[in-house]
Amino acid sequence: MDRLEQQMKFILEADKLKQIVRQSYIGGADRKETDAEHSWHLALMCALLSEYAAEKIDVAKTMVMVLIHDMVEIDAGDTYAYDTEGNKSKRQREVKAAERIFHILPEDQAEYLRNLWEEFEAMETPEARFANTLDKIQPIMLNDATGGLAWREHQVRESQIMGRNARTAEGSPALWEYAKGLIEKNLGTNIQKDMAEE
Amino acid sequence: MDRLEQQMKFILEADKLKQIVRQSYIGGADRKETDAEHSWHLALMCALLSEYAAEKIDVAKTMVMVLIHDMVEIDAGDTYAYDTEGNKSKRQREVKAAERIFHILPEDQAEYLRNLWEEFEAMETPEARFANTLDKIQPIMLNDATGGLAWREHQVRESQIMGRNARTAEGSPALWEYAKGLIEKNLGTNIQKDMAEE
Repeated sequence: MDRLEQQMKFILEADKLKQIVRQSYIGGADRKETDAEHSWHLALMCALLSEYAAEKIDVAKTMVMVLIHDMVEIDAGDTYAYDTEGNKSKRQREVKAAERIFHILPEDQAEYLRNLWEEFEAMETPEARFANTLDKIQPIMLNDATGGLAWREHQVRESQIMGRNARTAEGSPALWEYAKGLIEKNLGTNIQKDMAEE
Repeated sequence: MDRLEQQMKFILEADKLKQIVRQSYIGGADRKETDAEHSWHLALMCALLSEYAAEKIDVAKTMVMVLIHDMVEIDAGDTYAYDTEGNKSKRQREVKAAERIFHILPEDQAEYLRNLWEEFEAMETPEARFANTLDKIQPIMLNDATGGLAWREHQVRESQIMGRNARTAEGSPALWEYAKGLIEKNLGTNIQKDMAEE
């Protein structure tokens, strides 16, 4: 198979990301968003919000990173943030998916996207930290905009959100401050407060 | 309103692009894709296929261009390629939409996106020509992958497709060659042949 055919085969495979449904409702709240829509939203945010990154980032690289960060879910499915059991097997399922999906591409591009995905997962570079921050604050924004629908549906507690967002400030203190404001606004209504420890 | 609030307001407004439905069916063919999904797909294609651009392009700039190229459809709606009446008023409706939507952003970013959209529309730069080529070949790929469903639904004729794609080769001769192969494959079955002139 020639190079262009491999690339086009991957681009058609990627189309399947439009069939992976996440837990966040889109504005209007009549349905949940797809991974493709979520990834588009993050890329747009990346283009417009890079000025708030904690460290200088390569914006183009970060855009490609967010465009492909959920590609493994074509095989592994979307694992909801607060699904304890699902999250145990998540890494293993996703690595297997990365092996298959990215390697539809010619070797150089397969390695490029595979490495970019691993970089996103490892959160050890400024780009990966910023991409992870966007990935965390976008559902908070959608949740707030839809009256906390997904939070209420899953009876999410404050401690779960704060635990999940333990590293969100690393990519951008300013964006985390903004998201924290939205969380606080929904506390006790759409987000369950945790019992006082004592 | 401070800068970040304006940006976040725009990012929530952009969410509405997930509610604009296009005419192309996604693989699996059970529903049509949204503008947000389409824009994501083009950005991914841009990242992977820039080597086929007719002229050297700024890939990052082209990615942002395709991410926002349909944003005006939040107000103006999706005008189907072969809707003659709708296409007469398209430009006017879209300019009005651009005025409103992009100007939710702080002035510098509003100008940046507005100009990028105008650049896309004018097709006078290498980036705009390549972006337009991607925008034209992606639905051809989806149509071919779904057994020509949207073509058949609209009884599209060869001359309509070729007319619409009169400038597709300008952005990338190689990608147009590929798309032409898909068109030829569907000719006489999913795409109606035009009557012989004589």
